[in-house]
Amino acid sequence: MMKLYDLEPSGNCYKVRLFAALAGLPLEIEAVDFLAGEHKGERLSALNPWGELPILEDGKLVLRDSQAILVYLAGRYGGEAWWPGEAHLQGEVMQWLSVAANEIQHGPNAARLVDKFGYALDKALALERSERILRLLDDHLATHQWLAAGRPTIAECAVFPYLAVAWEGGVDPRPYQHVNAWMERIKALPGFQPMPGI
Amino acid sequence: MMKLYDLEPSGNCYKVRLFAALAGLPLEIEAVDFLAGEHKGERLSALNPWGELPILEDGKLVLRDSQAILVYLAGRYGGEAWWPGEAHLQGEVMQWLSVAANEIQHGPNAARLVDKFGYALDKALALERSERILRLLDDHLATHQWLAAGRPTIAECAVFPYLAVAWEGGVDPRPYQHVNAWMERIKALPGFQPMPGI
Repeated sequence: MMKLYDLEPSGNCYKVRLFAALAGLPLEIEAVDFLAGEHKGERLSALNPWGELPILEDGKLVLRDSQAILVYLAGRYGGEAWWPGEAHLQGEVMQWLSVAANEIQHGPNAARLVDKFGYALDKALALERSERILRLLDDHLATHQWLAAGRPTIAECAVFPYLAVAWEGGVDPRPYQHVNAWMERIKALPGFQPMPGI
Repeated sequence: MMKLYDLEPSGNCYKVRLFAALAGLPLEIEAVDFLAGEHKGERLSALNPWGELPILEDGKLVLRDSQAILVYLAGRYGGEAWWPGEAHLQGEVMQWLSVAANEIQHGPNAARLVDKFGYALDKALALERSERILRLLDDHLATHQWLAAGRPTIAECAVFPYLAVAWEGGVDPRPYQHVNAWMERIKALPGFQPMPGI
């Protein structure tokens, strides 16, 4: 069975758990002792020299980076529903995978790292970035039910997690009504599973 | 013909110009007057509400985000050479598209924005991130000719640009011999075109 090296409160790990739940994929979860630095130890550094989680192991294949894992899992096991085959739809989805890797990582995720885990990051900048993202996302969702391709895709799995726990970093998405309604639609998808904080 | 809304000194725009040059794709370039804020004006905001460049227009399709544009162009016009069809190879390439969107954006790109364009970003943090990326990249390239899939892919087009002009932000990749050799291999690819600063 595929193995996910996992940290429960990590939104990046939750992206993968969420997709597996929605797509009905079996996944063996190995909880990593993050506080003890196990992710930077010899065994996991050999799998991922970047010293980060999640890591996916599927037979001989090892992948790091939550977006890369989503693309792989959806392409290999999820069918075209979650990761379309058409180039223009892949481009549409990809726009949001970049938002997840860049803007959300350095917006709501950074704010939460400061408040919840004591990271020394620029909280004011993270809050400013969070508000910008939420405004742009709200505008997009005012005319779209889903982020891309007219249906739920891995874009949802990449963007939703850190917004759903953004309140743990002092960011409140609820006033953004279209974002809020979209989050409720995701929670209503068959197979949906939450993470702590949702 | 496809149109790229372009800013010549932008590494993100160069990612697209580089791919088009390597893959032999015709591209109409419209130079945007960035200093006058044209990218945030009414016409371009309607195409990209994020107020950023590049923007690609191909018939009715409009895409923002350089990584998304690479995935689209390679999938639609580049053939499997540049963006493999196999899920595990897409996952491999995707790992580096995330590095381009996240770590490189907030490392060498941020350092260059401070030095070359006067942005008020944390230069020390950008330099620290840059050294980390270069070390990890160098380790990877010690045993790989190319970033992913054993051949040049859009991962090269996404990761190379801001490293090639990193010296403009006070980051010098040349001591990293495997990174340096890899950059030379890219410059030797048929059709390669530089950007100002390379």
